[in-house]
Amino acid sequence: MATVRLMSDAEAETIPAVKAVFDDIRATRKTDFINNFWRALAFDAGLLARTWEGLKAVMTVPGEIDPKTREMIYVAVSIANSCSYCVHSHTAQAKAKGMGAAEHAELLSIVALAAQTNHLVTGMQIPVDPEFQL
Amino acid sequence: MATVRLMSDAEAETIPAVKAVFDDIRATRKTDFINNFWRALAFDAGLLARTWEGLKAVMTVPGEIDPKTREMIYVAVSIANSCSYCVHSHTAQAKAKGMGAAEHAELLSIVALAAQTNHLVTGMQIPVDPEFQL
Amino acid sequence: MATVRLMSDAEAETIPAVKAVFDDIRATRKTDFINNFWRALAFDAGLLARTWEGLKAVMTVPGEIDPKTREMIYVAVSIANSCSYCVHSHTAQAKAKGMGAAEHAELLSIVALAAQTNHLVTGMQIPVDPEFQL
Amino acid sequence: MATVRLMSDAEAETIPAVKAVFDDIRATRKTDFINNFWRALAFDAGLLARTWEGLKAVMTVPGEIDPKTREMIYVAVSIANSCSYCVHSHTAQAKAKGMGAAEHAELLSIVALAAQTNHLVTGMQIPVDPEFQL
Amino acid sequence: MATVRLMSDAEAETIPAVKAVFDDIRATRKTDFINNFWRALAFDAGLLARTWEGLKAVMTVPGEIDPKTREMIYVAVSIANSCSYCVHSHTAQAKAKGMGAAEHAELLSIVALAAQTNHLVTGMQIPVDPEFQL
Amino acid sequence: MATVRLMSDAEAETIPAVKAVFDDIRATRKTDFINNFWRALAFDAGLLARTWEGLKAVMTVPGEIDPKTREMIYVAVSIANSCSYCVHSHTAQAKAKGMGAAEHAELLSIVALAAQTNHLVTGMQIPVDPEFQL
Repeated sequence: MATVRLMSDAEAETIPAVKAVFDDIRATRKTDFINNFWRALAFDAGLLARTWEGLKAVMTVPGEIDPKTREMIYVAVSIANSCSYCVHSHTAQAKAKGMGAAEHAELLSIVALAAQTNHLVTGMQIPVDPEFQL
Repeated sequence: MATVRLMSDAEAETIPAVKAVFDDIRATRKTDFINNFWRALAFDAGLLARTWEGLKAVMTVPGEIDPKTREMIYVAVSIANSCSYCVHSHTAQAKAKGMGAAEHAELLSIVALAAQTNHLVTGMQIPVDPEFQL
Repeated sequence: MATVRLMSDAEAETIPAVKAVFDDIRATRKTDFINNFWRALAFDAGLLARTWEGLKAVMTVPGEIDPKTREMIYVAVSIANSCSYCVHSHTAQAKAKGMGAAEHAELLSIVALAAQTNHLVTGMQIPVDPEFQL
Repeated sequence: MATVRLMSDAEAETIPAVKAVFDDIRATRKTDFINNFWRALAFDAGLLARTWEGLKAVMTVPGEIDPKTREMIYVAVSIANSCSYCVHSHTAQAKAKGMGAAEHAELLSIVALAAQTNHLVTGMQIPVDPEFQL
Repeated sequence: MATVRLMSDAEAETIPAVKAVFDDIRATRKTDFINNFWRALAFDAGLLARTWEGLKAVMTVPGEIDPKTREMIYVAVSIANSCSYCVHSHTAQAKAKGMGAAEHAELLSIVALAAQTNHLVTGMQIPVDPEFQL
Repeated sequence: MATVRLMSDAEAETIPAVKAVFDDIRATRKTDFINNFWRALAFDAGLLARTWEGLKAVMTVPGEIDPKTREMIYVAVSIANSCSYCVHSHTAQAKAKGMGAAEHAELLSIVALAAQTNHLVTGMQIPVDPEFQL
């Protein structure tokens, strides 16, 4: 189905640069589970490593925005970019980090409202108010 | 510039259905300022009223997600939908509700990371892991 | 502002392949006005000719959908693809072909509603009902 | 497959706020069929009710644009927003309201042409002609 | 699954305008294989012919950009437009024209980087440098 | 105009983490010019550094795809994502790396063709041919 092969653990064991990333994912996330995204990226060890380092820096380092909210923002962007796998994986992660049904409904409500007004604004080509300029 | 005329307060005073919405916006937001989005929508009183009721229900009623975070999710979607006016207006509102520079940087980082992985996923057409299925 | 130069009538007169297209646009549309889109495309006569032939075949040949509605569908797609120039030019053409304010408001309402439900559907990853399958 | 559960009629019967919307959908559309979109939204009765009220106001109230054309505009936006379920459901509804094969082909032709010129315009960053400004 | 029927060779044989296009696809591509895209478009012979002529003019005529790179650019756009079938078909064609795994990884890296910075730029609403203006 | 301030060289001199990135951009690109994208990102030194490292790894390291083609792929994605600034900056860079007018026209032709067929495919919901599966 994918345009690249998904790498099994057995094969990953034989490629040190891939194994190092898989090990770090497992250690960072405290789980043995490696989802298909990483198994697909593994066809190119450099791409895999750069993508994981980027995600680790943004999603796992403590910051102003809490982990659950980060996943919810991720879901919002993934919906707008129409990425089915991403909606599945990040909705699952937001739920795992505590997003309940009411919160999920609010998230979807905001995303849908934003899409609605985004299209109205683009349809009317509204000039930015001076009050919104920096 | 816009594809519809922006309605002035003077004209709004003469159309009861528009005046009612403008009054409610001012009362709900506790400010005299009506931004261009509403002045543009006012060319059709029904569209104006429906849009305001929808936004009021999602953005101003107390819920699980705090008002600042709602605006940040709004910004995330507006970026992905490439709506310049919306990015300006909702970034301004997120800042008004307390989003600081560090939080803004984190928001942009998550949005950009999501876009990056959304495109990788779509490029590789990755099948959803059974673990992510409901 | 553009990434290519806009071709003036004076220059177009000197390039037969461009002049032929400009002449046909004027004859087909029964107006002397050539909008910037065609002046920009003119930097490559082949691209200009192919684009004009494609547009002429779809937008000017009699068919099932009337000319005003064709422009309104064009506007709908241009909004969703966030193309500012296209929204301006095709809204102007829809108005020129008879789209009134009420119709414009209905068009924007449908586009915005579709965007809203598009995002809800993508956010919930809803399976297609067997009833909707061919 | 979905990120929320699809609600059965049996469960809907036990939640008055959901049952009321399902009943109104059936009465308004004069059919017993409730498609998956509404069964998914039913996980949150408020979201379900708001979405149905919004859709009912735009799609079922008499207006300038006829019902078949409304569905065709809906399809156009759903294509541009890459919403698979929405393309299926609104194409089915446009056909049910009388869209024939020739009209379907014209619709797809306009959508595809618009996408083509949208991308050309964005690639060339064409300034809006003064003639297209309000 | 599709919203139109896929035309078999047997049926195509009975419609001269469709048969002519199928024959030309086979002759131009030097293969007997007709992929589903053309079988779907065949529900309207005019749409089929116009689409094939447009594609033939852009993708099969000798030019500055080599055939493999053309397919890679096609893949890049198809990813950004979230078109699953298109990603599959044009990735397959890019591979058939010589795109190796390292090149594929570079392509995906550029696409993902562009998406990341596209979103950052839109989020910050950066004014174009005079140096980038024509 | 931007939602963050653009950092001047004078201010960058006072923030070592920003100055280090600006210096590296100048050294890597062999020019004194720092475009607005980096001046905007500089409001957060971490975001600036991560973004520059990511771009440097993908765009400046020798690889299979030549530098001019990389910029052209970047332009293609930026068009599809409707990023005005990005189209300007990467078109300028593609030209600086040798993209001539004919090549530019071919690039735009491929991007526009892809958009056209992307929309046709999504509108028809075409199933992937087994021949295109890995």
